[in-house]
Amino acid sequence: MYAITIPEPGGPDALVWDEVADPVPGENEVLVDVVASAVNRADIMQRQGFYDPPPGASVYPGLECSGRIAAIGPGVSGWAVGDEVCALLSGGGYAERVAVPAGQLLPVPEGVGLKEAAALPEVVCTVWSNVFMVSHLRPGETFLVHGGSSGIGTMAIQLAKAVGAKVAVTAGSKEKLEYCAGLGAEILINYREQDFVAEIEQATNGAGADVILDNMGAKYLERNIRALAVNGRLAVIGLQGGVKAELNIGALLNKGAAISATSLRRRSLGEKAAIVAAVREHVWPLLADGHVRPVIDREIPMNDAATAHQVVEESGHVGKVLLVTPQAGRQGP
Amino acid sequence: MYAITIPEPGGPDALVWDEVADPVPGENEVLVDVVASAVNRADIMQRQGFYDPPPGASVYPGLECSGRIAAIGPGVSGWAVGDEVCALLSGGGYAERVAVPAGQLLPVPEGVGLKEAAALPEVVCTVWSNVFMVSHLRPGETFLVHGGSSGIGTMAIQLAKAVGAKVAVTAGSKEKLEYCAGLGAEILINYREQDFVAEIEQATNGAGADVILDNMGAKYLERNIRALAVNGRLAVIGLQGGVKAELNIGALLNKGAAISATSLRRRSLGEKAAIVAAVREHVWPLLADGHVRPVIDREIPMNDAATAHQVVEESGHVGKVLLVTPQAGRQGP
Repeated sequence: MYAITIPEPGGPDALVWDEVADPVPGENEVLVDVVASAVNRADIMQRQGFYDPPPGASVYPGLECSGRIAAIGPGVSGWAVGDEVCALLSGGGYAERVAVPAGQLLPVPEGVGLKEAAALPEVVCTVWSNVFMVSHLRPGETFLVHGGSSGIGTMAIQLAKAVGAKVAVTAGSKEKLEYCAGLGAEILINYREQDFVAEIEQATNGAGADVILDNMGAKYLERNIRALAVNGRLAVIGLQGGVKAELNIGALLNKGAAISATSLRRRSLGEKAAIVAAVREHVWPLLADGHVRPVIDREIPMNDAATAHQVVEESGHVGKVLLVTPQAGRQGP
Repeated sequence: MYAITIPEPGGPDALVWDEVADPVPGENEVLVDVVASAVNRADIMQRQGFYDPPPGASVYPGLECSGRIAAIGPGVSGWAVGDEVCALLSGGGYAERVAVPAGQLLPVPEGVGLKEAAALPEVVCTVWSNVFMVSHLRPGETFLVHGGSSGIGTMAIQLAKAVGAKVAVTAGSKEKLEYCAGLGAEILINYREQDFVAEIEQATNGAGADVILDNMGAKYLERNIRALAVNGRLAVIGLQGGVKAELNIGALLNKGAAISATSLRRRSLGEKAAIVAAVREHVWPLLADGHVRPVIDREIPMNDAATAHQVVEESGHVGKVLLVTPQAGRQGP
């Protein structure tokens, strides 16, 4: 098969579409013929050499895919060859085939196309596990997501709205903020022009945000804590603004607040399976009834993954950038 | 009535036993004739002028008491004059009488004396809310409590043991560690002589502690995070080692770990009532059947609260130091 390889870490051109050995499904795994994958920030860090795949994961990038089951490994039940699926991966999505632990498979939701389903697993599992399973966002609470127009952001807005939270977003342009408003965001903050702490304070009559989903890490730590409400929960899922920052534990204590920092990719097989099961139970019905939909910026052929990375690195997108395998067009529905 | 007043913040002698106005129970409150209160670190900070009572709280120190109900305010049901109770307070325990929100009352547990019950509310509610309601300690997990021989520590060891966790403690002497072992602690670390990170690592075969209950704040932040297991939870309830420290968010993220910082005293009436109800359901049966008991270092007359504060400030105690009101000895059983 062909896959995107990274012979040497570097810029987008480090991504090389090359012939490699086919993966073999192990025990409790299935083999998926990939129709599409999608770009995540972690892929860019992996390309740059800052984020090695965890032990046992595919060496190729790609944390999610959609496609058809091509073969079933020993011990798998409930799935059959030909099933249309999408999957959460520890790597290997940028390829024509990938071996997937059965616990990380999801059916393509009703009302979502096979290709489009590749945009769902990573963002839905990340948002659901952090915002709901870890941070317990509740109806009526205020939820702030940074980077509201990103793949994570567009899904977080929809899911928080669907459970009855009031949604605040930061984004870098009027157009992106308008898009977020269309998805259900009510508090719109242009981080280039406004101070999000002051804006959240004003919009909540001084109460603050109950849950914040953050991709900036160090750069926003102090401001995020100031923007939190009493009993607030800050969920850090990215470190785009650096790794180390001073923490005022007294400020945290005065609010009875909490900080979590998680990486979906580093979770165990059992934890991933539990998250995927929760997502199938709670989010798949919202997709089927149209309350939530995948937000896709554009499709790019997988062998041109370099262009897709450039788009994401320049933040020129809204929602997810799909990578479509060359053979996807040749397959029937 | 008489109460401990603080005319000017300062050392132990700042505590003055003086005649003051009797409290009047408001709506949904009862008046308690206090038999005993107990010393908490927050009382010392309040005496020093570093911890003002939250709005609406009594200005006198004392976060817990036991005694008999003397009067019932409007709207209270389920309690009667003469009932023997203990109570979680926002202040005012160092006094002959105190007005208590009914949601913060607990019956004196079976098998525990009326005076001894004053040692329970603050430590039981603090440990239960942080270790179980916030940090979700589960059977089979490893639990580390710093200051294992303190009031909080001696209760945390017993409750964690009762739910089937493996308990690690730090303390400052061999004698204190032996006392902790008698309560059920299995991993004993003398913080004056040993590095708790290395000891936890060795005792857990490199896995780390799943939950850490910390009273040191800044001084231990970096070490606590190193000592955490994957998916570990650090609950900070005190800042005896300072307020601000550098946080390595990347280290937290690599472990999928979380930090919470809470102060029971600052919680809302509704939250306190929910914690008290959970404690009555989950911990009171453990006290009644003898699995858990209050650990009391000594009793000191309340009008000599200065001596009690000295004992606690010098860490010369194991468990709780009780303050007994002068009239307690004059009352029949």
